[in-house]
Amino acid sequence: MKDTATTVMERCDLLANISEEFGLLVRPYGSQAMREANNIVAGWMRRAGMTVRQDEIGNLIGRYEGTGEKTLIFGSHLDTVRDAGKYDGILGVMVAIICVQHLHNRSERLPFSVEVVAFADEEGLRFGTTFLGSSVYAGAFDRSRLNLEDHNGVTLAQAVRAFGGDPDALEKNGREKRDLLGYCEVHIEQGPVLEQKGLPVGVVSAINGQSRARVGFVGKAGHAGTVPMEGRRDALCAAAEFVLETESAAKAEPAAVATVGEIWALPGAVNVIAGEAKHSLDLRHPNDAVRKRLRDHLERRAGEIAASRGCGHRWQLRQETPAVPADPELSALLGKAVEDLGITVHRLPSGAGHDAAQMATLTPIAMLFVRCKEGISHNPAESVTKGDVGAAIEVMGRFLALLAEGERSGRESEASREVSA
Amino acid sequence: MKDTATTVMERCDLLANISEEFGLLVRPYGSQAMREANNIVAGWMRRAGMTVRQDEIGNLIGRYEGTGEKTLIFGSHLDTVRDAGKYDGILGVMVAIICVQHLHNRSERLPFSVEVVAFADEEGLRFGTTFLGSSVYAGAFDRSRLNLEDHNGVTLAQAVRAFGGDPDALEKNGREKRDLLGYCEVHIEQGPVLEQKGLPVGVVSAINGQSRARVGFVGKAGHAGTVPMEGRRDALCAAAEFVLETESAAKAEPAAVATVGEIWALPGAVNVIAGEAKHSLDLRHPNDAVRKRLRDHLERRAGEIAASRGCGHRWQLRQETPAVPADPELSALLGKAVEDLGITVHRLPSGAGHDAAQMATLTPIAMLFVRCKEGISHNPAESVTKGDVGAAIEVMGRFLALLAEGERSGRESEASREVSA
Repeated sequence: MKDTATTVMERCDLLANISEEFGLLVRPYGSQAMREANNIVAGWMRRAGMTVRQDEIGNLIGRYEGTGEKTLIFGSHLDTVRDAGKYDGILGVMVAIICVQHLHNRSERLPFSVEVVAFADEEGLRFGTTFLGSSVYAGAFDRSRLNLEDHNGVTLAQAVRAFGGDPDALEKNGREKRDLLGYCEVHIEQGPVLEQKGLPVGVVSAINGQSRARVGFVGKAGHAGTVPMEGRRDALCAAAEFVLETESAAKAEPAAVATVGEIWALPGAVNVIAGEAKHSLDLRHPNDAVRKRLRDHLERRAGEIAASRGCGHRWQLRQETPAVPADPELSALLGKAVEDLGITVHRLPSGAGHDAAQMATLTPIAMLFVRCKEGISHNPAESVTKGDVGAAIEVMGRFLALLAEGERSGRESEASREVSA
Repeated sequence: MKDTATTVMERCDLLANISEEFGLLVRPYGSQAMREANNIVAGWMRRAGMTVRQDEIGNLIGRYEGTGEKTLIFGSHLDTVRDAGKYDGILGVMVAIICVQHLHNRSERLPFSVEVVAFADEEGLRFGTTFLGSSVYAGAFDRSRLNLEDHNGVTLAQAVRAFGGDPDALEKNGREKRDLLGYCEVHIEQGPVLEQKGLPVGVVSAINGQSRARVGFVGKAGHAGTVPMEGRRDALCAAAEFVLETESAAKAEPAAVATVGEIWALPGAVNVIAGEAKHSLDLRHPNDAVRKRLRDHLERRAGEIAASRGCGHRWQLRQETPAVPADPELSALLGKAVEDLGITVHRLPSGAGHDAAQMATLTPIAMLFVRCKEGISHNPAESVTKGDVGAAIEVMGRFLALLAEGERSGRESEASREVSA
């Protein structure tokens, strides 16, 4: 019999061909490719003993009944960026289905039901927004988004309808939370940490909070040949100083990352001193208080650098997202599952956003990262090994077993309390 | 009677309206505006007692005969950049003409002739090249330039013909050098030094040599959220370090200026670590050996910075122009003229290029800089005061007188040698 990791790898390969464009993977929300992907995945869900439905936004939901009333959710997304890799999102859904398949093959019923959710939109490629699928499922959908238009002028409301859903029902289409045990997502790391540590999987501690700012320095433009060094107010030199300050401040703060990825010097000529320099700033940390402290420190330093050079400065905070910590109990259980398989437990924050961040508004969350080659993602070169996928499948199987043990002993102690009462 | 500085200011104002566009000053080579400017200036030359001719490229040459065989040349240019100021080039021609007017008003003949040359192209706005006028006059014209085209596909050869000249005669249209005493040019400083020193004029020590390079750093692009600080090879951080290195190296080298005026981070996204950063480098110094030493130092430092960050680097030297030192004797005489008027003599290099640099291939050169407001040039905000223009006129008058004294005493001693022989 074929091993489960091979099946997962083959399914990821197959879905990589379900695309809007020939020769590269592009699967936006509501596309024909998305419809086909849902049909194919629904088939695998049914084969794993699940009943399958699609909600109003198009999330595909497979349910494997347990013996008790509670439900654990497994999930990730099936949509992709343009020219995507095979594993971002898809891997998590495939691993979840194969775990259920495993139970089904043994006709094993857990003391809770398992729902596998394949979210219909995480990347936001078509409407320039993110988490459409998980926000609906989590009951956090903002209906003002219905007016967003894609590049062809099709609104989200029209796209939802074309995909078989009712746009007016999205807001109230969130899942009941009473019966939920939690949400667990498997995802490729999209970073180099596990590869560096030599580990197949890692347990996510939190999804980082993020601050994005636009920073500007205003000096004095002048002729590069005629203005002596001493009298200059070179805005690009101020920006350069700030870029290095950002790097060293982030290095000094464990788990922080800070990046200047865009920069402009104005007027921008080889023989003109920059009168203005602007750049982006992207700052992330698993702890919001630390991120804000670092943000405030950098804002202060921008002012100090500008002042020391006789320059002005602008600091425009453009976006802030709070961190989403993983649930300590659910993550401890996931860590125990990793440990039981003889793998060193490494906890790491997620620098990128995930459906789990939306799901955290509904239920406790945990995430398992799978090592990916060189940390490359959002790129056809995205790569994972079959061995690591096998490890992830085993960890999730063990996680289900541990959770089942906990549920059973919890139910027994409840029963004994009832007897003694 | 109106003072001469007022006349010069009024003439600069008038010429600022002789433009190809309404509301801003644009006077490219060979344009109708250039033709009108030459006609007007020729009139002022004639009024100052000069005979006037135009050479094959369109340089306007006025000659005021002296009693001896030798000739001193005064000059600057009448063409402009787009949206130009009133004084860049024009001021030098106007001061020269008024100095001759002064001699003519007193019917004074010097022991040498004075030629005033209004060069037809210094800025190179139309053909993307510089010094067309002075290169022809200096006998240094490169005929391969005749095929250069303007934005309408008109070649330089056609433009020369349309302006009344013979393109095939340009190469041999250089001035005889036998009878020349030297070339002296008055020009606005286009920098802030004289303003900072509180001086109306300054004596140019040299026209700086220049090195231009394109510098590139190659690191590794990555997700701004998922790649920890420690593993990064951020190309923009390498470039930022180099920008600051350039600034401090130039500050440490007296009279050096170095500028990074353009910069690009690639791929250039707020959430992507820069995999590549490129920028310009403009390096100038009055002494070629010092400039080359600084250039080599920065090239070495670029390599060291790249290596220390695990990055690659590229260093592409794009252009080098040697420095043109002013003639020591002629400049000493110009300094004496400044001193005689009770003005502190300040010697400074010219960071920008000038017709004098071309003329240096023909004859000894000297240059007088006039203070300009905030060092602003190539801009309608270009501004000089009438007082400073008056000082420049007086200095140039005194310079002529000193040169005349020297010529007379030289001739006398020659004559006495002839007698004693």
